[in-house]
Amino acid sequence: MIRVSIIGSGNVAQHLIKVFSLNTDIELVQIFVRNKKTVLELISADKIFSNYKDFIPVDLVIIAVTDGAIELVYQELPFTSQLIVHTSGTFSLEVLKNKNRIGVFYPLQTFSKSKEVDFKTIPICIEAQNENDYKTLECVAHAISNSVHRINAKQRLSLHVAAVYVCNFTNYMYTIGNDICNLNNLSFEILKPLIQETANKIMLLSPAMAQTGPAIRKDTGTLKTHFDFLTNDNQKEIYKLLTKSIIDNGNKL
Amino acid sequence: MIRVSIIGSGNVAQHLIKVFSLNTDIELVQIFVRNKKTVLELISADKIFSNYKDFIPVDLVIIAVTDGAIELVYQELPFTSQLIVHTSGTFSLEVLKNKNRIGVFYPLQTFSKSKEVDFKTIPICIEAQNENDYKTLECVAHAISNSVHRINAKQRLSLHVAAVYVCNFTNYMYTIGNDICNLNNLSFEILKPLIQETANKIMLLSPAMAQTGPAIRKDTGTLKTHFDFLTNDNQKEIYKLLTKSIIDNGNKL
Repeated sequence: MIRVSIIGSGNVAQHLIKVFSLNTDIELVQIFVRNKKTVLELISADKIFSNYKDFIPVDLVIIAVTDGAIELVYQELPFTSQLIVHTSGTFSLEVLKNKNRIGVFYPLQTFSKSKEVDFKTIPICIEAQNENDYKTLECVAHAISNSVHRINAKQRLSLHVAAVYVCNFTNYMYTIGNDICNLNNLSFEILKPLIQETANKIMLLSPAMAQTGPAIRKDTGTLKTHFDFLTNDNQKEIYKLLTKSIIDNGNKL
Repeated sequence: MIRVSIIGSGNVAQHLIKVFSLNTDIELVQIFVRNKKTVLELISADKIFSNYKDFIPVDLVIIAVTDGAIELVYQELPFTSQLIVHTSGTFSLEVLKNKNRIGVFYPLQTFSKSKEVDFKTIPICIEAQNENDYKTLECVAHAISNSVHRINAKQRLSLHVAAVYVCNFTNYMYTIGNDICNLNNLSFEILKPLIQETANKIMLLSPAMAQTGPAIRKDTGTLKTHFDFLTNDNQKEIYKLLTKSIIDNGNKL
């Protein structure tokens, strides 16, 4: 049994608490949160703490808080010589002082509290300062996922940036699709098979091969009709920029 | 049996030929193409024609060509009084002269030749000038899909515009993710579970509820690190515009 404690109560923290609670290779020892209510439904109350003075040494402490709070949380920790990781794609380890052994445990996924995920398929990107700690992280990652990767800081940042495009920006495209449907008395449901197929296609084809639509066909008549149809300035600006990008990119291929 | 002929050999035409060939309610009578080789693998050679003088009357003729070619193809047709539809989301029926009975048969999906699709889930948006023709289109659509919709011209255009965002622009986000991976010696495979989950999430949550990432959290430190990391001007411009859009949209909610 690997003994793990978690600091945080956000989306990532909650999903980690759930998956570790169900895992027989991991013992979840303590959860540190500001407000105990946020995780009361996930774990028994006697494991929830708010004061680091109650800290019990473990094999691994996971700081699962927003990037802007990682350094602050780390500085507050009263203990030393523990293995402590954060879960951020972007935050640099170098900012943290070496009073503990530090590392990264970055699950490359989009987490919302109300949507369950299958951890087995989630790539876990790990980084440590020495091989022993790396092995510990590898054991914890393998306990919950079949996809474990040694990823250095620059690669991790590039993955996080790529994730912003393929996940956060993609979801914003869904938001615009939803808004256009609402404005025209259409159910967003009608777009869902298309959204699924768009994601499914690139499991088999490269994104360049999978590109369809008026921009890649340089169908100027349709592009103009669409642009004239849009009334929202922000949607127009996005339509213009991404159409130009697809055309320019197609010309390079 | 409903007798159907198809004009065209592009992505939509090829997928329609495949699905109609396998269907027992539809008899595929003739395929009209410029180059017979393009569809020889899909249908027996004696059904492939290049000259409209060989046309045999049927219940439905589907013009499945790019928007820019629809009017030209329609004008060339030597026959009259047939039910003729196009497959475009954007092309307006009003452009076509009433020498035939016209309508729309718009499958709302992304079609690439090398990717099979499940037609049963594809929304088919239909429009006709009279109820008899509408019934014919409905029968043909129901023969291949469980999702058949009466959609007027303005709704159809709005669906096509929405489809550009949720499909074509989303696929371009995948292209950028792929490019960032290539540049940093990472396999695009590592992003695929995230892409799948992003599409899966909005089957349960609204896109607004599903939004995650540094923009919606207004995590300015991470946003700046990402922007500084990017070296490609086009990627930077897209990052800037979509980040601002997500923040502004989040402020409205």
